[in-house]
Amino acid sequence: MTLKIGLAQLNFHVGNFTSNYNKILDAINTAINQGIDLIVFPELAVCGYPAWDFLEFKEFVDDCESIINNLIPLSTKIGIIIGSPTRNPNLEGKNLHNSAIFMSEGKVNNVIHKHLLPTYDVFDEYRYFEPANLTQCVEFKGIKIALTICEDLWNLDDDPLYTTNPMDLLIKENPEIAINLAASPFSFTHPEDRLKVLKRNAHKYQIPFYYVNHVGAQTELIFDGGSCLIYPDGQIKGLSYFSEGVFSPENENKALEMPSKYDFIYQALILGIQDYFKKLGFSKAILGLSGGIDSAVVYVLLVKALGADNVFAIEMPSPYTSSISNTLAQELVNNCSGKESMIEIKSIMESIEKSLENLFYGLPKGLTEENIQSRIRGLLLMAISNKFGNILVNTSNKSEMAVGYSTLYGDSNGAFSVLGDLYKTEVYELAQYLNQKFDGLIPELIITRPPSAELRPDQKDSDSLPEYDILDKLLYNYIELKKGPLELESMGFEKSIIDRILSLVNKSEFKRFQAPPILRVSNKAFGVGRRLPIVAKYL
Amino acid sequence: MTLKIGLAQLNFHVGNFTSNYNKILDAINTAINQGIDLIVFPELAVCGYPAWDFLEFKEFVDDCESIINNLIPLSTKIGIIIGSPTRNPNLEGKNLHNSAIFMSEGKVNNVIHKHLLPTYDVFDEYRYFEPANLTQCVEFKGIKIALTICEDLWNLDDDPLYTTNPMDLLIKENPEIAINLAASPFSFTHPEDRLKVLKRNAHKYQIPFYYVNHVGAQTELIFDGGSCLIYPDGQIKGLSYFSEGVFSPENENKALEMPSKYDFIYQALILGIQDYFKKLGFSKAILGLSGGIDSAVVYVLLVKALGADNVFAIEMPSPYTSSISNTLAQELVNNCSGKESMIEIKSIMESIEKSLENLFYGLPKGLTEENIQSRIRGLLLMAISNKFGNILVNTSNKSEMAVGYSTLYGDSNGAFSVLGDLYKTEVYELAQYLNQKFDGLIPELIITRPPSAELRPDQKDSDSLPEYDILDKLLYNYIELKKGPLELESMGFEKSIIDRILSLVNKSEFKRFQAPPILRVSNKAFGVGRRLPIVAKYL
Repeated sequence: MTLKIGLAQLNFHVGNFTSNYNKILDAINTAINQGIDLIVFPELAVCGYPAWDFLEFKEFVDDCESIINNLIPLSTKIGIIIGSPTRNPNLEGKNLHNSAIFMSEGKVNNVIHKHLLPTYDVFDEYRYFEPANLTQCVEFKGIKIALTICEDLWNLDDDPLYTTNPMDLLIKENPEIAINLAASPFSFTHPEDRLKVLKRNAHKYQIPFYYVNHVGAQTELIFDGGSCLIYPDGQIKGLSYFSEGVFSPENENKALEMPSKYDFIYQALILGIQDYFKKLGFSKAILGLSGGIDSAVVYVLLVKALGADNVFAIEMPSPYTSSISNTLAQELVNNCSGKESMIEIKSIMESIEKSLENLFYGLPKGLTEENIQSRIRGLLLMAISNKFGNILVNTSNKSEMAVGYSTLYGDSNGAFSVLGDLYKTEVYELAQYLNQKFDGLIPELIITRPPSAELRPDQKDSDSLPEYDILDKLLYNYIELKKGPLELESMGFEKSIIDRILSLVNKSEFKRFQAPPILRVSNKAFGVGRRLPIVAKYL
Repeated sequence: MTLKIGLAQLNFHVGNFTSNYNKILDAINTAINQGIDLIVFPELAVCGYPAWDFLEFKEFVDDCESIINNLIPLSTKIGIIIGSPTRNPNLEGKNLHNSAIFMSEGKVNNVIHKHLLPTYDVFDEYRYFEPANLTQCVEFKGIKIALTICEDLWNLDDDPLYTTNPMDLLIKENPEIAINLAASPFSFTHPEDRLKVLKRNAHKYQIPFYYVNHVGAQTELIFDGGSCLIYPDGQIKGLSYFSEGVFSPENENKALEMPSKYDFIYQALILGIQDYFKKLGFSKAILGLSGGIDSAVVYVLLVKALGADNVFAIEMPSPYTSSISNTLAQELVNNCSGKESMIEIKSIMESIEKSLENLFYGLPKGLTEENIQSRIRGLLLMAISNKFGNILVNTSNKSEMAVGYSTLYGDSNGAFSVLGDLYKTEVYELAQYLNQKFDGLIPELIITRPPSAELRPDQKDSDSLPEYDILDKLLYNYIELKKGPLELESMGFEKSIIDRILSLVNKSEFKRFQAPPILRVSNKAFGVGRRLPIVAKYL
């Protein structure tokens, strides 16, 4: 016989046991109605991923166990495999396992633990979990299944991170199929990498692999789904991104079309924005709209994610703001049929400068006064946010966050950052993508004019930074690829630029420490996945 | 023969290879002059601890190797054991080990790797290191030594975190002494816990244990030292806290006197403040002085750490500030012979309210306007900080950070937080301690009057929070002991208070995410050691 397997690619919510339980019940009912034999949920589905230190709370794990106990009776009608933390019965070792619980006929048949615990970048699994100490296939309706959890399939590299490979052991039992429960977050290269790993596994072990992943965003981490079935010959079935549902991949015959880089990024950011608001119970956003490219792109993304009526754009010109900036900002809002308001900050600047007059007497004006403008804007946005309950969304990009060209408590403000994982050159590309997709929503001049913070007369980004194509390449090699100064020099970057930029990046750690969470779309975003000391002296 | 062993308890600086190398050389010369046979440096001494993701940079590890290579020739004159990351020669597993390198007679004799890699609270060691896969004593001048690294001695609990215990294997080789290289950060209970663990080891294995730890602060982590020699009978020699040097514990005969809780906390905070400034190359601090207890205690600590001339106190009264607050703040500054300045914020409040007048037309005043006051103060402090190069120091306490009773981008501002790991009740106790130690520096009324944020007429903290003795007990049980609502109720806390406070704590995660780093003095500080999701729904 062949099993009919359902992959429950769902949008869970960390710690929201009521909502997670209801989604699981709905999916089980859907699967039963579809005649599915075995429904498979992702890794740690019951509590959501990542639950971080909630896993250290006994009552949190009790809640996970309650859900599992409630599901057991349902397994008389359908086989169920679901991810949950479980308690380690041994005294020695960490107190929890990251497990796949397999139930059928009204009882738990097997509890399979994860072997390979990712503890790098955004992952902290060894913080909570004891790795499996035994390997064993499970059996359902006479069919032997190699059941693994996410990272368990990923130890195929030339320089493998782990000393064991669980599938090498499982395959000895001659399973007919493999099932992998995942919580594999998005980066724009990751869907491709993931398919490669699945193909290599299916090819190596010569059995079909069923893969089920989360979809949905949890603060900075976005899950794109990508659940599917992969055959040993490389054929992929039922691949589906950014949608919720119970997929029965054998039945799917739609041709596989991988989205482009910016298709992926666009969908990921929209989901990241929507879930931030929805899961926290908010609907309205506010942002500062400068007439520059970063805030323009964030504005369009917010409008597409939340609806134009839910996005409040505020222009806050100073005496250094060019009139074209205001015009462009308003044109953009009009193009989107959006809502905006303008507050001139000159009088506030004056009242602050007057208050500081005695203290600053005789001292030249400079960076302090530039930062004051940025902080006045931050203050006004937060005041409006407080008054109306609109969430302030940050508009910084990865290049400026890298070198610290933002004002802490000023333009670095916001509940979360939409573009903080995209270099400036990528923001431009995303703007072009949006204009193609939405018929020129963003006024062309916003994209073509030279970028400027407009905090003093005739300021341009290029006054004090290399051109963005050079800067971004250098930053990518340092941040993503972790190349040091010697290696960067051998690649052809100028030594003086390397020294200056790397030192700027390292010295800005204190600003990034206090930055908002950033929607992660690359393999190395600032935030939880990149941990560096502030009080250090390196480069 | 007996070895004369020197414990190099030094203040390293993460990534500052020049300074670390010079300290190591100085210590070796000192030890040679003292006739020491074997000098022992702490865990990861060459790069400083914690180096975090710098360990993922190849050239950073190259720099560690260079130092080691430079030290080898010196081992003709003295035995050297030093902590450093080393490369894992095996393809499989993580690329680094956390190692103790033992050199003598001009060559490396052994490289011993750490077995137990702490990956909890502030520790992330499995993120970088592969655990040791072999256990072996080292031998120096005919004496067999059980050489371990920090956590390797800590698996003695009833509920042990790890499945192996390296000393159980090492003891089979009949070593005469044990040496442990540590990087064990301070909490006010940790010196006591550490001695207990060392005593249990010395007693269990019936050999003397030499222990060497870091001293100094690295952003949030403070290392108190506490290097010593412990004999099987429990006798402790040469125990030394908060001081740098090469200690030869056999020779020390000073009686052991453990500092009190607030002695420890005081010394830790002073070191934490001093190293933040010194290691970043700054000398001057600024803070907002309200006349309340938190800023008063921070002010005194800054004055003691940096000198009164280096601390600039700013009073920023609003129309809601009582005149006694200003009087008390000034009295405190006078008591310390300090420098202060006053800036009234009323006119700035008015200019901001005027700018928002149209937008806020007809809406009642409230929290928004309270937050505006706090953010004006934050803005002014940052402006003065920018203009004069004074580092802004945060004055929040752990209770208010827990429940979110601080204004993001307002009073939550600062490069680092001095009191963020002390509950309000502990801040009061620390104030009493300081007044005893320094003869009533803090005006008594600052300590005795009811706490208030003074953001609206007649506001008091107790208007909206339980009394601090109840609140702090509840917070301690939830945050430090991770007790859930059911357990807290069974302890006698009122259900309505539990529900309200736990919900406030969890909902304030977004504020703490953007808070400054906090000098850690407890076993569970907010920051890197406590990782919780923002977009979650639990309790």
